Amino acid sequence: MTIDFRVIARQLGLLLLVLSALILSMAGFAVLEQGVSSLWHSPDAEAMLMSAGVGAVLALVLVGVGKKSSSIIGHREALLLVAMSWIIGGFVAALPFWFWAHLQGGAGQATHDFGSMVNCYFESVSGLTTTGSTIVQAISELPRSILLWRSLIQWLGGLGIVVLFVAVLPMLGVGGRRIYRIEAPGPSPEGVRPRIVEAARALWYIYLGLTLLEILALRIAGMGWFDATCHTLTTLATGGFSTSDASAAGFPSPSIQYILMFFMLLAGINFSLYHLVLRGEWRKAIKDRELQCYLGLVSVATIIIAVSVYRHHSIPPSEAGAAAGAAEAVQHSLFQVLAIQTTTGFCSTDFDTWSFVPKAILMLLMFVGGCAGSTGGGIKVIRIMIAAKVMAAEIEHVYRPKVVRTVKIGKMTIDADLKRSILVYVLGIIILFALGTGGLMYFDAGNGIDITTAATASLSTLNNIGPGLARVGATQNYAWFSAPSKIVMCMLMILGRLEMFTIIVLFTPRYWRGE
Amino acid sequence: MTIDFRVIARQLGLLLLVLSALILSMAGFAVLEQGVSSLWHSPDAEAMLMSAGVGAVLALVLVGVGKKSSSIIGHREALLLVAMSWIIGGFVAALPFWFWAHLQGGAGQATHDFGSMVNCYFESVSGLTTTGSTIVQAISELPRSILLWRSLIQWLGGLGIVVLFVAVLPMLGVGGRRIYRIEAPGPSPEGVRPRIVEAARALWYIYLGLTLLEILALRIAGMGWFDATCHTLTTLATGGFSTSDASAAGFPSPSIQYILMFFMLLAGINFSLYHLVLRGEWRKAIKDRELQCYLGLVSVATIIIAVSVYRHHSIPPSEAGAAAGAAEAVQHSLFQVLAIQTTTGFCSTDFDTWSFVPKAILMLLMFVGGCAGSTGGGIKVIRIMIAAKVMAAEIEHVYRPKVVRTVKIGKMTIDADLKRSILVYVLGIIILFALGTGGLMYFDAGNGIDITTAATASLSTLNNIGPGLARVGATQNYAWFSAPSKIVMCMLMILGRLEMFTIIVLFTPRYWRGE
Repeated sequence: MTIDFRVIARQLGLLLLVLSALILSMAGFAVLEQGVSSLWHSPDAEAMLMSAGVGAVLALVLVGVGKKSSSIIGHREALLLVAMSWIIGGFVAALPFWFWAHLQGGAGQATHDFGSMVNCYFESVSGLTTTGSTIVQAISELPRSILLWRSLIQWLGGLGIVVLFVAVLPMLGVGGRRIYRIEAPGPSPEGVRPRIVEAARALWYIYLGLTLLEILALRIAGMGWFDATCHTLTTLATGGFSTSDASAAGFPSPSIQYILMFFMLLAGINFSLYHLVLRGEWRKAIKDRELQCYLGLVSVATIIIAVSVYRHHSIPPSEAGAAAGAAEAVQHSLFQVLAIQTTTGFCSTDFDTWSFVPKAILMLLMFVGGCAGSTGGGIKVIRIMIAAKVMAAEIEHVYRPKVVRTVKIGKMTIDADLKRSILVYVLGIIILFALGTGGLMYFDAGNGIDITTAATASLSTLNNIGPGLARVGATQNYAWFSAPSKIVMCMLMILGRLEMFTIIVLFTPRYWRGE
Repeated sequence: MTIDFRVIARQLGLLLLVLSALILSMAGFAVLEQGVSSLWHSPDAEAMLMSAGVGAVLALVLVGVGKKSSSIIGHREALLLVAMSWIIGGFVAALPFWFWAHLQGGAGQATHDFGSMVNCYFESVSGLTTTGSTIVQAISELPRSILLWRSLIQWLGGLGIVVLFVAVLPMLGVGGRRIYRIEAPGPSPEGVRPRIVEAARALWYIYLGLTLLEILALRIAGMGWFDATCHTLTTLATGGFSTSDASAAGFPSPSIQYILMFFMLLAGINFSLYHLVLRGEWRKAIKDRELQCYLGLVSVATIIIAVSVYRHHSIPPSEAGAAAGAAEAVQHSLFQVLAIQTTTGFCSTDFDTWSFVPKAILMLLMFVGGCAGSTGGGIKVIRIMIAAKVMAAEIEHVYRPKVVRTVKIGKMTIDADLKRSILVYVLGIIILFALGTGGLMYFDAGNGIDITTAATASLSTLNNIGPGLARVGATQNYAWFSAPSKIVMCMLMILGRLEMFTIIVLFTPRYWRGE
């Protein structure tokens, strides 16, 4: 059976049409701020117009190609469509950056952050995958429409991931439904499609509701409307792009910091639990084992890091004395634990200056990530829980090979298939991390890259976090990498975001032969 | 059911008695070389006598404790005995180093390599686990009896491992019998014990035969008897202790180098295949999939490294021209690939000066190690093969969750239990590697340890190799580590050598409660 490319083209075309419309709305935003003449005077407004045009043409061609396609999407087509949405979507979303740089003209163009398509694509993929690694060296100098667009693509990416993994893939029987605790869709009279639409609509309302709440909260805490909107878009997506060169540290008010923390925490939770809460089943939601483990990890990590940070005076001591110093240590520790574990990647302080233990814990949390079905990246808390339980059960097999004990998470029994698939997933992420590190070491040997930088850059992009340590630390950026390294990291970001196998499967001959 | 400590005490006592007798034979060796008066004039001969005495007393106490024990060893007792053999055996085998240092007296004692018990224990455990990491800073200044003892404990460790994993544990139903391709011992009239004795005897003859062959070969190639014996003892055990400060590079004759390579290659092969060959079933032996994969890995790695080493002139260019230079590149590349993959750890050149690609390949080979049932360490070729096949099969599950394909290696079907246990094993080694790296970073932060050193030291000791990179590179040693780090590495060496779970199980309450 060959793959039905037309159905893929049509769906992809529709997606690009939405993207183009959103880019056009950025031009509208520029007009609102700078007046109508910005459309022919201001490079960022012009760039938005041109990008929307190019995107729309591409979208219409694809829709045209797929005009006569069937309305049913098969499993294989769904996988290819998902991969293409991020890969091609990343290209269209990168157009505003590229046009903006090139419409400015002048001598600085070659050295402009967005002077090369690779840089634009890196920034755009980092956005759509909700990673938040940036190649921009002076964020505060970007025009506001570009800043808003950077934030908006993260928000879109986050929404896309939640809808995809909670509503679409499990219904299609693709991916790990049990991981997301989606009840099996039994034979229903309406078929699969209405269920997907219904679930996606509920998720969309939740996402939108949280967005409005956070914007309001940040505004009340003293942030301007623009910054509040941009940071909200990147918090809920666990993206981490900021409008300030100092990231979240640019907004030092504790109330703003704690609002960001609260919404990062929420963004790292399985969105189907919010669905439960909305249906009044909040008791069931708070009994969720993954949620409990997630909150436990955050608490334990924060306590250890806060003690270490306080004892080593890693945060400049407050003039107000010991109690205030302790409060600051707790605030920054909690902030960085949440920012890293939820894979948002905001920085409230330069954690690269912390001592070994806090940095080692943050690195471990990078692997863990958020809950399944959240906008967070990483391996996911539930997979770590299951892998740990399976490993513990294995030890007993050494001296009593015949005893079989059932591995359970709450009431869910983990069968042999799920055990294997989770162990393979964890191992796969570790292998990709090692390959990524090797790739960066190889391609940037000329830049004198060190192993800490290469390893944390690989880890951070693969798990969609943002910052790493050393030369990709909290106060650094990704501009200095060579183009091949940037392409490696784009691949890592997409592989990590789409849970790896969704992409790897496309490289197997069997998939294409349809065997 | 409580654990029968008496049976463990008796078996351990018998083992220590053998060790003590061998230490006594080292005193005999000193007498042969230096005359009888060495027993009261020469610190090394005195040290051997005293160590043998202390060891014998300890051994007899243990045998006395276990005098009335039953002759049957249960599964749990076997596991504890195995762990104790290496942990307590390492202590007795360390006595000659410690007594030798302390009988010398004088001002240098505190700074003597063997001045601290931790150093002596590290060297001894590195020997018994066939690792080959050393804390000795000037090997050529050691007395010959000490040098011989260092080599002999590696040989003993290698023999112990082969007998244990090929003959003892599988017969007891402990550990992964299928991994070693041992045919299941069906109900036999003679019972389990005679089978173990028979298998152990065959392995012992094979090991001894290879030992005699290599000594002769090295002597004929021009090495002295003493050096030939010491290097043979450490080659077949894939240990890697040398009598020269420059390791194998101290014997640059190509014939010696190729003899060492040949026997390293043999030591990395499953010893039960030699048993097959002896029974005339060599066709079956050469069809072994693990053997083929092992030879394939060695060949591919050698080719890639040789090309890189030759192109980057990483080996000082020979005056004899390009052809000779190429031959040298091949020789050193093959040597280091074999030394690292078989986990012997000899150095024929300072591979730490090689470029990134060769070093990265060597690091990957460190994880792989030799074949199951060889004296080599590492994860083992067969486990890597199975893990790779399981991962490949998993990819297909993504788009067709209902299709079940059987994973096979040759004619062996890999069932769900074996899949899970191997994935857990690989993951466990990676976790121990990471924990070890973290431990070394933490305990030697004051020594300004770098991540490359910590990671490769952890990797190298866990997989029983010997050298690593940077400050534990080919020309370096382990003397400078802090005592806590040395203890961490002793734990890693023992965990790696006894295939991890054999040790970890002892830390679970259930094992002790006998549930």
